[in-house]
Amino acid sequence: MPGNTFGKLFKITTWGESHGPAVGVVIDGCPPRLPLNEGLIQALLDRRRPGGSEASTRRKEPDQAKILSGVFEEMTTGTPILIMIQNRDADSGAYKPYANVFRPGHGDITYTAKYGIRDWRGGGRASARETVGRVAAGAVAKAFLDTENIKVSAYTLELGGIRAVQRDWEAIDQNPFFCPDREAAAEMIRRIDTIRAKGDSIGGIVEILATHVPGGLGEPVFDKLDADLAKALMSIGAIKGVEIGAGFESATKLGSENNDSITAKGFASNHAGGILAGISNGDDIVIRVAVKPIPSIQIEQKTIDSSGNAFNLSVKGRHDICAIPRINVVCEAMVSLVLVDHLLRQRAIS
Amino acid sequence: MPGNTFGKLFKITTWGESHGPAVGVVIDGCPPRLPLNEGLIQALLDRRRPGGSEASTRRKEPDQAKILSGVFEEMTTGTPILIMIQNRDADSGAYKPYANVFRPGHGDITYTAKYGIRDWRGGGRASARETVGRVAAGAVAKAFLDTENIKVSAYTLELGGIRAVQRDWEAIDQNPFFCPDREAAAEMIRRIDTIRAKGDSIGGIVEILATHVPGGLGEPVFDKLDADLAKALMSIGAIKGVEIGAGFESATKLGSENNDSITAKGFASNHAGGILAGISNGDDIVIRVAVKPIPSIQIEQKTIDSSGNAFNLSVKGRHDICAIPRINVVCEAMVSLVLVDHLLRQRAIS
Amino acid sequence: MPGNTFGKLFKITTWGESHGPAVGVVIDGCPPRLPLNEGLIQALLDRRRPGGSEASTRRKEPDQAKILSGVFEEMTTGTPILIMIQNRDADSGAYKPYANVFRPGHGDITYTAKYGIRDWRGGGRASARETVGRVAAGAVAKAFLDTENIKVSAYTLELGGIRAVQRDWEAIDQNPFFCPDREAAAEMIRRIDTIRAKGDSIGGIVEILATHVPGGLGEPVFDKLDADLAKALMSIGAIKGVEIGAGFESATKLGSENNDSITAKGFASNHAGGILAGISNGDDIVIRVAVKPIPSIQIEQKTIDSSGNAFNLSVKGRHDICAIPRINVVCEAMVSLVLVDHLLRQRAIS
Amino acid sequence: MPGNTFGKLFKITTWGESHGPAVGVVIDGCPPRLPLNEGLIQALLDRRRPGGSEASTRRKEPDQAKILSGVFEEMTTGTPILIMIQNRDADSGAYKPYANVFRPGHGDITYTAKYGIRDWRGGGRASARETVGRVAAGAVAKAFLDTENIKVSAYTLELGGIRAVQRDWEAIDQNPFFCPDREAAAEMIRRIDTIRAKGDSIGGIVEILATHVPGGLGEPVFDKLDADLAKALMSIGAIKGVEIGAGFESATKLGSENNDSITAKGFASNHAGGILAGISNGDDIVIRVAVKPIPSIQIEQKTIDSSGNAFNLSVKGRHDICAIPRINVVCEAMVSLVLVDHLLRQRAIS
Repeated sequence: MPGNTFGKLFKITTWGESHGPAVGVVIDGCPPRLPLNEGLIQALLDRRRPGGSEASTRRKEPDQAKILSGVFEEMTTGTPILIMIQNRDADSGAYKPYANVFRPGHGDITYTAKYGIRDWRGGGRASARETVGRVAAGAVAKAFLDTENIKVSAYTLELGGIRAVQRDWEAIDQNPFFCPDREAAAEMIRRIDTIRAKGDSIGGIVEILATHVPGGLGEPVFDKLDADLAKALMSIGAIKGVEIGAGFESATKLGSENNDSITAKGFASNHAGGILAGISNGDDIVIRVAVKPIPSIQIEQKTIDSSGNAFNLSVKGRHDICAIPRINVVCEAMVSLVLVDHLLRQRAIS
Repeated sequence: MPGNTFGKLFKITTWGESHGPAVGVVIDGCPPRLPLNEGLIQALLDRRRPGGSEASTRRKEPDQAKILSGVFEEMTTGTPILIMIQNRDADSGAYKPYANVFRPGHGDITYTAKYGIRDWRGGGRASARETVGRVAAGAVAKAFLDTENIKVSAYTLELGGIRAVQRDWEAIDQNPFFCPDREAAAEMIRRIDTIRAKGDSIGGIVEILATHVPGGLGEPVFDKLDADLAKALMSIGAIKGVEIGAGFESATKLGSENNDSITAKGFASNHAGGILAGISNGDDIVIRVAVKPIPSIQIEQKTIDSSGNAFNLSVKGRHDICAIPRINVVCEAMVSLVLVDHLLRQRAIS
Repeated sequence: MPGNTFGKLFKITTWGESHGPAVGVVIDGCPPRLPLNEGLIQALLDRRRPGGSEASTRRKEPDQAKILSGVFEEMTTGTPILIMIQNRDADSGAYKPYANVFRPGHGDITYTAKYGIRDWRGGGRASARETVGRVAAGAVAKAFLDTENIKVSAYTLELGGIRAVQRDWEAIDQNPFFCPDREAAAEMIRRIDTIRAKGDSIGGIVEILATHVPGGLGEPVFDKLDADLAKALMSIGAIKGVEIGAGFESATKLGSENNDSITAKGFASNHAGGILAGISNGDDIVIRVAVKPIPSIQIEQKTIDSSGNAFNLSVKGRHDICAIPRINVVCEAMVSLVLVDHLLRQRAIS
Repeated sequence: MPGNTFGKLFKITTWGESHGPAVGVVIDGCPPRLPLNEGLIQALLDRRRPGGSEASTRRKEPDQAKILSGVFEEMTTGTPILIMIQNRDADSGAYKPYANVFRPGHGDITYTAKYGIRDWRGGGRASARETVGRVAAGAVAKAFLDTENIKVSAYTLELGGIRAVQRDWEAIDQNPFFCPDREAAAEMIRRIDTIRAKGDSIGGIVEILATHVPGGLGEPVFDKLDADLAKALMSIGAIKGVEIGAGFESATKLGSENNDSITAKGFASNHAGGILAGISNGDDIVIRVAVKPIPSIQIEQKTIDSSGNAFNLSVKGRHDICAIPRINVVCEAMVSLVLVDHLLRQRAIS
């Protein structure tokens, strides 16, 4: 069974390869009469675009979103919304030398194992370019969440071991890493420069915060809110870990420390990260994800080609040094999609 | 949309509450002609049963599995398999005093928010007793994986801050914590005793290892193998974090460190945890999950009742001190279910 | 992908074979706080029970419904509802002689082709006994529809070529064929007697009427209300045709005859059968299904066994002469299930 | 839950409105390494195109299919296939006068009831133009079925009461109605001319034949092959009835007449229409569907506008007189999609 659809009631199906004519998404299940236009989608896509930061690829894509269906006179009609973004600056030639090489850390070897065929141009479907469709759909999800006053934001908590200490929300949009700590952000820039000079790459941690989420979202026992969030985020290419609230720290805590006391005014603490027994509890939802380093590096690596011959690979393409901060908006989109989906699911039984 | 079904081709639906007449599961999609009998299911259920360790509840349940459909002359027929386990030792009276109280760390408050009604007896559907159905289904999944020589095991990596250093596979079945390090296991026992004496509880980390998994399993871009594993595991009550391979450590690594070199004989390391671009790469699959402390503790906690009145709660019921090790077999079951499901999904396109 | 689940938001999964220990259903997605008890389910099951009419099998099953989960203090809780009905009067011995014979008109040959194994006892999963689970679920669906004042009824329109002319609703419960025309019903009884004497069987037509269905139900372009109704009904064993409103007659009509004029008070006619463009239009929903004759007959038939050897079959078991009227309540159940499902689906976007 | 996706393993999602920029489909689950190019899709689309027959609209659409993803070097890659067809000859002005009028027999009134908003241009999403996406997907399905030597064809059995007696397969492509009876076809042309002169419209019956379908396809008890076929076909706009094999005739037959005897060489007759107990039996699959007359007619009809005011409607647009024969290829596409889906589903458990 294919896996390119996400969501049950607010369903998205992304399509497109890195170097095909276009990438995009079809959204089925968006409630009717939601105000929507291309500008609104563009605004979120612009936050994902390469070139936005020091850590990014130099591929230049205008990433212009076109709505081809489902919207009439700037209102959704309840029918499928097709959003298309044309690929313009694809340089397949740069990938030709590795057409038969399995690049370490990439899906080349696993796509071949799975499908017996591989579109090697720019990583094909396994490219991060696929996330353009996710972000476009996320923009629609966020427009819907806005009508319920729910806000989702993703920011850089850690990069190359440098961790934000402050949570200064105003700082986020004022540094290229979308980091809520100005000092940490400045240090991150220096760290990225050092790593670029070595031809290496680096990982980090993104934190996602959702506020004003009503209690009652999540469908036990398998489609719990945290389970669906974990899936949504782990489905993003570079992510290798997900934790909710206290997360891995809760493994070392006592019950008396970890439990959040309840008062008439709400929870006294939020180790639960806003989710209890798989259902939102009305508190902020807090999630952290571990982002691995970009696997394409200039430093030479040992690998093999599809015939099993050894190959020394040094990747010269236009690659990011770190998936952060471009991945932040993808996380934000995925969390938004999960929340909309569960809002609609809860409506059905209310 | 309800959420009590897991899997797409090998689909399970669990049912039942802690203190209802029975709990169980219906499995739809089990391939025909698989040898199966109740003894095989019982064997895995016995590993989950309370009373098996120092950390467990004193509720005594024989947990006898009965197969009511889908099996003919000890072979699966391809039709739905209904497995029922009767509840025998339920003591609802112990929960009566808290019928209107929201126990901290439990789903009492969120189930009420979601459904507007709550079966307070033993936690109702939110009880860990629901996992009996998961384990029964997991036993069938494991029987199928056996025919492909795929093995899944879950063991205690850390408990109350005590971490296993050794990976001594023979040790696992020789200590009550299913820990692959005898010394760590001995220390864990002492730790549990200390915590029980205080009326508190503790968390830990479970590691799950799947070997002989063929390459090619996983369905990009949303039903990636790691995404489905994350969902499967995060759907288990006490779990607050999931990581694959290097997981959160990969956030601090350089690309040159984190990439697994490929040789003609396989991967030189396994930071990927056996999954690349969401598809199994043929190497061992390695996952770790963070388990929070059991929320029911004897130490007094502040909370409220359903009318918003303050309530000082000290839970006297028969509760586990730690969800580990009983949760291990649940993790093993869920990972097995994901693997069978993806094996069948891959067959469809092969 | 297995096919034992029906519905998207109000999901049912039936399980069980004709001669296994039990048959039943698990319902996932029933809204919480719906009053429900076993008596309510029993009432509908009693209408399906063999022995209720001249045309039925002589197998005597008390068909006692037991609710094992999902209901607390006679209210649904929003969690899965498991209903079990034990099989008591199974006589597998009568089927033993045909264990390797492919009975004409039955699924023996196709189940073998599909699964490579067949539970020959009483037809196994392919038996009409499976519909017990559907009717039990239908009773819950009808309880929900009652809260919206939606009524669904199924009655015998035609049997062995004898067609009801009257639509006398009071007559339905006063004759063994649930026929709204007393004279036709009397003739049907005579027809059945003649056919039984010959050791043969006969088919007929059931009409299903749903009233007070609100406009707006149905999900274009594939999950249209008529599409889902067609599937629901065609999934019942003996049904070979489904038509909505004017149905096959509309094939010979002019547009000017077939279109239903619209007035401020509603539609002037109902050739559409209550559905336009796949969405309910607020008028009565009218469906007819063609029911084939029961394939098990005493008259000798030519067939083969599983080795391909010729076999002359004369079926001596306790079989119905006609699937009508027992199939009526199954139709009623399936239509009710579709309507509930679409009511919930519509809520999600409203 | 939205309804624009069809199929489980071979999943299609159509998108687009009659007068939007484009219509199309995304196919997820097409097996990799299937040869595919735009010409192959174009060939089937050309059979659906208006202007192909006397009964068709005069809207001229080149309907050029573009593949935007999922195909690399004329081979499918296993990733989503996006096919887009631009709308060029849309004349929304002709619909402007009816923007607030509920046209009888159309979905205007039900779309408004469901979504509270309606794209009135050319019928919006409810237009038959949506089936362009179905046919494009059907072309891919047929390419896959070709690799298994399965053939699906749809032809006109009846139009305006004129019924084909012959089954002359060569005649089908030699008359504008795709009718297997030359004489009947000639009469149909005359019938259409008479009806056009009156400004009226007419219905008919399409028969669909699938040959070389292997036994074993279909997933009891709900996703039976006949159930999924019924849904697939009933989801097409103008279709009001579906029957398999003997269909409604079986309602008047005796069991001894209707049962198909089995011999070592196969079935002696095919009243079952190739499906037993919801599973293909290896014989030809035979289905008939009732097609209602086109609702847009020039003859004046009584209706209301969205404010409830009476309105006398005479539709002047460029409309078909009969949905046949353009609907034939849509039926062919839908049946092909069902067969591919079930082939893949059967592979998963084989």
